[in-house]
Amino acid sequence: MAFLQDTLGPKGVLTEKNDTARYCIDWAGTTGATPLAVARPANTEEVAAVVRYCHQAQIPIVPQGGGSGLVAGALPDAQKAELVLSLERMQRIRHLDPLNFSVSVDAGCVLQTLKDAVEAEDFTFPLALGAQGSCQIGGNIATNAGGLNVLRYGMMRALVLGIEVVLPDGRILNDMKALHKNNTGYDLKQWFIGAEGTLGIVTGAVLKLSPKPTSTRTAMMACSDVTAAMRLYAQARRSCCDLLSAFELIPRRCIELAIEASPELSDPLDTPYPVYVLMELSASGPVSLDSMIEGLFEAGLTDGLLLDGVLASSDTQANQLWMIREAMLEGQQLHGLHLRTDIGLPISALSDFHQQASAMVHAHSPESEVIAYGHVGDGNLHFNILPPPQLNEDEKAAVLHNLEMRLFALVPQFNGSISAEHGIGRLKQAPFLETLDETERQLMQQLKLLLDPDELMCPGRILPRQSQRSSDSVF
Amino acid sequence: MAFLQDTLGPKGVLTEKNDTARYCIDWAGTTGATPLAVARPANTEEVAAVVRYCHQAQIPIVPQGGGSGLVAGALPDAQKAELVLSLERMQRIRHLDPLNFSVSVDAGCVLQTLKDAVEAEDFTFPLALGAQGSCQIGGNIATNAGGLNVLRYGMMRALVLGIEVVLPDGRILNDMKALHKNNTGYDLKQWFIGAEGTLGIVTGAVLKLSPKPTSTRTAMMACSDVTAAMRLYAQARRSCCDLLSAFELIPRRCIELAIEASPELSDPLDTPYPVYVLMELSASGPVSLDSMIEGLFEAGLTDGLLLDGVLASSDTQANQLWMIREAMLEGQQLHGLHLRTDIGLPISALSDFHQQASAMVHAHSPESEVIAYGHVGDGNLHFNILPPPQLNEDEKAAVLHNLEMRLFALVPQFNGSISAEHGIGRLKQAPFLETLDETERQLMQQLKLLLDPDELMCPGRILPRQSQRSSDSVF
Repeated sequence: MAFLQDTLGPKGVLTEKNDTARYCIDWAGTTGATPLAVARPANTEEVAAVVRYCHQAQIPIVPQGGGSGLVAGALPDAQKAELVLSLERMQRIRHLDPLNFSVSVDAGCVLQTLKDAVEAEDFTFPLALGAQGSCQIGGNIATNAGGLNVLRYGMMRALVLGIEVVLPDGRILNDMKALHKNNTGYDLKQWFIGAEGTLGIVTGAVLKLSPKPTSTRTAMMACSDVTAAMRLYAQARRSCCDLLSAFELIPRRCIELAIEASPELSDPLDTPYPVYVLMELSASGPVSLDSMIEGLFEAGLTDGLLLDGVLASSDTQANQLWMIREAMLEGQQLHGLHLRTDIGLPISALSDFHQQASAMVHAHSPESEVIAYGHVGDGNLHFNILPPPQLNEDEKAAVLHNLEMRLFALVPQFNGSISAEHGIGRLKQAPFLETLDETERQLMQQLKLLLDPDELMCPGRILPRQSQRSSDSVF
Repeated sequence: MAFLQDTLGPKGVLTEKNDTARYCIDWAGTTGATPLAVARPANTEEVAAVVRYCHQAQIPIVPQGGGSGLVAGALPDAQKAELVLSLERMQRIRHLDPLNFSVSVDAGCVLQTLKDAVEAEDFTFPLALGAQGSCQIGGNIATNAGGLNVLRYGMMRALVLGIEVVLPDGRILNDMKALHKNNTGYDLKQWFIGAEGTLGIVTGAVLKLSPKPTSTRTAMMACSDVTAAMRLYAQARRSCCDLLSAFELIPRRCIELAIEASPELSDPLDTPYPVYVLMELSASGPVSLDSMIEGLFEAGLTDGLLLDGVLASSDTQANQLWMIREAMLEGQQLHGLHLRTDIGLPISALSDFHQQASAMVHAHSPESEVIAYGHVGDGNLHFNILPPPQLNEDEKAAVLHNLEMRLFALVPQFNGSISAEHGIGRLKQAPFLETLDETERQLMQQLKLLLDPDELMCPGRILPRQSQRSSDSVF
């Protein structure tokens, strides 16, 4: 590690277990193995120097952003000791170009920091997710992050104009173009977006900005069931034009979990209802969002899709509605071990999937409890499960594993995906491989080996190590 | 060719020169070599059978959509006789899923046909370009088509949810998922979008739909120069929220060209102005586009960005404004040989580029005439040049070639791209290769060889044949 210390200086390398421990646990509480060390380069050239060194010395690397992953992709692995490469010292906002509606940043910039910085200049960077106070832009790109505003602004892929990547052999791919349109050859940046760091380390990016909304309206609406909520979505998508920025499904149980976690929160409506929708509209010009959302209320009540609802009359009230959305996650955590999923579905199949998956859980573990919420405007359902509370931890884990396998087995029947946004990492690898046909599997493996023939960059994430599958007929 | 006849039937193969001639000329009037034959498979399995056969027999293939390319990418090449594979018999709209806002189609479906079909169901497929009456969805995907509505809806890449591709060895990659969110492994479909057919033949796709706008407003505005027009864009982008669907720069000369080509058209404003902007807003809900656009008029006149303007008061008047946009292209054609480009620029650099490029043309060929218009809301400038009219064809070609090289040499100084939307094909290959650094060039070449080691799929498009560069140190 002398090379690293020489190259990165004393602040740039951590080797003591006390110092490296915090790089070995993620947002979900999963822990990783002890890394060789943690490298903290300060700029792209230092990243490249570290990677070149590791490439030569055949040391595996796992790049790490804000540590908010949920699939153990960025945690050091035990199979062969890995160097954690943290981007946390690369936080610079390089350049905001107001007329181009773009900003270039270092990959280690925290999402919230970027959001605040562009907001101060009357722009919005629309990516919004629970972890935005800690997750980093590089991680958002590597995981093609989703979140709350995808239905209007797209996933991270849609927000990236340019990219800078250190390849597994230490070469720098510089594609930091701030172009909204560019059709010159293969679009290399697409390879790295969503590749979870397995093809290289994202060190910088040019991102697309939107005008900061000058008005926002938030409403909580109540429906009789998921089917009604999804029909309401179709109506909202039309009657709110392209100004619908969030459409979150929240079952009754989540309201209770939220209040359990944050007792200062109150029930949003006087009567409890089976299913709620938390909806947000935003606009930056002279648009009457009030008349838009009131029209939706009226039509929904007339059609019987809506049972009740409240339109936030102030920012404070809107924040309170959004706090329910946040607190319900803490409420889930209070119940200990539970299954978290992020199923992706055709929007039209979401309600049927919800019904069948719930029936499956009820049939196989009647005392387990389904907590299914999510960004249903883009077909993303967090179909989570609380195990029977009286079981011990091992029993709970066994029940949840069994239900997860059954749940994933249902997904292809609805032409869905086992991960809409969290990705594969290591935790979802087995069910992911089940979903691939041989052609897909070969193409993915071939791209990996093209860029990283020694399998030193995030080895074993997304795809198993080649060395583990030497008996495979394909290779 | 007996195999082809057996497999595809008599309608499936054309071999007579009379029959194949129409596959050998494109939208720009460029002609290709005589192909071995034209295969016209009727479904994906037939495409795969043809490709497998050619793979075995080492016959190069060039897939062809509507023939509206501008860079000779889909024309048969002379170096080694090629089989043209036309998708024109695969026109089926497979399935429209209204609640999922998606539609699946065969690749040979003509864009206009798809637009009409979804419009009848109250949706819009927003891709809009001059060639929409003939271009096909497969070609739109292969070229990552752009056009008029990119600033609101993105390029073709942003509209593709799923894809079906026949790989160069005849295997079928089936990724026809209708998912708005999906983060499971490398996103293979991204490889093929914009690859101009060099990595495989797109045979089907699932596309994203938007609600059909219920109101649209079109305006023609006049500005003193390009700088003012670009400042007006920044204002429009904010004050029209995300409802701005087109923002086209049109110089005075283009109005004259349009009237020359279509004398029934009249000047949109009473007085001539140096620069015009053709703007469109559309919405599907209760939005007052009138107050939005009137506000923009008022602000623009107050700030001095706007000199004059007209808001279309009827669909007929709106169509007339758009007819100017179409007719000006015919007007250019009437002047014979001219340089067409599609430069991509940071929006913030467009005005300066326009100025410097115009000065360059004036300095090197004072009698040439600059015709620069385009989708400037996404930084796409069609910086075209009419050569001095008194020259003969060879002289014109020489002047234009010289100016094109000088123009392309300016592009990197503005961090731009030599092709925002038309792509590389064969015609732009030389200047394209100039823009690549060695890492980019290697990665692109490696992906090509990964998928098509025998170089049978669109050989020599985008990248030169490997065999031509055997002295290259990289390979």
